Amino acid sequence: MKLASLKGGRDGRLVVVSNDLAWFADAGHIVPTLQGALDDWERYEPLLASLATDLEHGAIPRMRFHERDAASPLPRAFQWADGSAYVNHVALVRQARGAEMPDSFWHDPLMYQGGSDGFLGPREDILLADESWGCDLEAEVVVVTGDVPQGVSAADALQYIRLVGLTNDVSLRNLIPGELAKGFGFFQSKPASSFSPVFVTPEALGARWKDGKLHGCLMVQLNGQPFGRADSGEDMTFDFGTLIAHAARTRKLGAGTIIGSGTVSNRDTDGGPGRPVADGGLGYSCIAEVRMVETILRGQPETEFLKAGDTVSITMMDDKHHPIFGTIEQKVVGGS
Amino acid sequence: MKLASLKGGRDGRLVVVSNDLAWFADAGHIVPTLQGALDDWERYEPLLASLATDLEHGAIPRMRFHERDAASPLPRAFQWADGSAYVNHVALVRQARGAEMPDSFWHDPLMYQGGSDGFLGPREDILLADESWGCDLEAEVVVVTGDVPQGVSAADALQYIRLVGLTNDVSLRNLIPGELAKGFGFFQSKPASSFSPVFVTPEALGARWKDGKLHGCLMVQLNGQPFGRADSGEDMTFDFGTLIAHAARTRKLGAGTIIGSGTVSNRDTDGGPGRPVADGGLGYSCIAEVRMVETILRGQPETEFLKAGDTVSITMMDDKHHPIFGTIEQKVVGGS
Repeated sequence: MKLASLKGGRDGRLVVVSNDLAWFADAGHIVPTLQGALDDWERYEPLLASLATDLEHGAIPRMRFHERDAASPLPRAFQWADGSAYVNHVALVRQARGAEMPDSFWHDPLMYQGGSDGFLGPREDILLADESWGCDLEAEVVVVTGDVPQGVSAADALQYIRLVGLTNDVSLRNLIPGELAKGFGFFQSKPASSFSPVFVTPEALGARWKDGKLHGCLMVQLNGQPFGRADSGEDMTFDFGTLIAHAARTRKLGAGTIIGSGTVSNRDTDGGPGRPVADGGLGYSCIAEVRMVETILRGQPETEFLKAGDTVSITMMDDKHHPIFGTIEQKVVGGS
Repeated sequence: MKLASLKGGRDGRLVVVSNDLAWFADAGHIVPTLQGALDDWERYEPLLASLATDLEHGAIPRMRFHERDAASPLPRAFQWADGSAYVNHVALVRQARGAEMPDSFWHDPLMYQGGSDGFLGPREDILLADESWGCDLEAEVVVVTGDVPQGVSAADALQYIRLVGLTNDVSLRNLIPGELAKGFGFFQSKPASSFSPVFVTPEALGARWKDGKLHGCLMVQLNGQPFGRADSGEDMTFDFGTLIAHAARTRKLGAGTIIGSGTVSNRDTDGGPGRPVADGGLGYSCIAEVRMVETILRGQPETEFLKAGDTVSITMMDDKHHPIFGTIEQKVVGGS
């Protein structure tokens, strides 16, 4: 089952979307919002699944689904907690800013509490007031949970995953060192994230969803050019069960909690720093990583952070080369 | 105007409470939840204020208000961002854990993104799975905002404050050093906070609300004994306007955002470490602070962190010695 929220009000309008993303059926007669569905999933999931089956069979009135009409599936959420499960990425970014990475990072997940009071839509501009902040994209996988009990094990945590999607976790790189030095984590350096137009149940992902990981090529384009082609099922040191268990160690998690994977990153096949897609490599899911590689290879970063007019897109294709979650497509615009 | 949410559903049931906290009137016919009211404050505030006037005049049916029936006014929220505005507290806590405090802390606010997916009710037990985590209370002042534009100034930010209240920001002190060393801020060390039974509009606070600060004695009891008597209007280095502007520097804030002051802390009158209430001092709004003072005076901490059976209460009285916001009263219970 695939779910989206059409723009409308603060929490959008829940619709069920066909597997090929061509059609939708309004779900408002079942429950008006995705948060409402997650709040009572046992009740609503069977009804939504039945609607999805009818939609797939053309048995009910349907309308054309346009991704540009979609808000983020949860236009705002009660929790957005982002991990750093691709430790290869963390190691490179730390190296890039001259910070040491403790060995514990390979067995104890990093996670920060993100702002969740308002997300950008999948086609909404990134408003950047100051280019000197060093605006970066971060292409990630996310899951949405139901209610998770405190102290859940990593294995048991997987059963609470309701939906899977993609995110662009927008980051202001040049504000990060100062904030992290203060010790309280990210705040100003993490403005609103955006999410894929469609979230998908794990069951509907088939073999793509395995061992608490999403398997597939995360396609990132920067200004229309191939930028990243990493596989989100590879080099993920901590699966989503482990990330959820980490988040729930000292408190329960409320339904509609979004847990992020952190920037997807694969090691290069030859063990060296990752190569650009144009050179036959898997590329990058954020600009900080390519800047690091450039620094290693040629002494200084060359790729600039995002500036007004730049465009970013993030998607993942199914075996028929159709986007599974739709596509995040955003343009950076200057602000005041 | 005073507002509360009676227990019921995930978001409670909005009621208007009389100034003396003795009576309430159901507000469900206006808007069912406090979040709903905040989402369209311009529309609902006049209607709720009118209901409050009628309640005060006994002009409508009213029922007895019992604080034990109240959930936190926002039982869950889209954002909970906690500052550290009483820099005296930060200096002492840092000293307590042997961490240096940069001078910049006196002019650049500290703020962390807190978990907001589920808050404890004002009379709800604190479930502590492991006493070795070092459970502490933190008595603070909070404000709830409307929609705040990105880049707002500290002076302009004050107009977006809709409500004022108190919180117990539960902290797990022994998990903090490890988490902060990882660089991503608090996560496991900040389980669910609880809030005062009632939130109050700034207008209804009269002279208590001035210059973006709440003025009054924050009364903290530990196991029934006076523990803290600091004035939240004193030694607040950053007023709430400054804290909101800090939060909104790189992104707008959604309606219903809760901004915390951080642990209230006053300097001792003689300039030395704060003395206990029993010794004529203003006491403490968290255990970490008294442990620090004990260490300074006698070489080691003596007051233990919270354990099963301990009780905490937090309140503030009006000029007639009635609680303004009701009283947070919580017991610690062991978990598994």
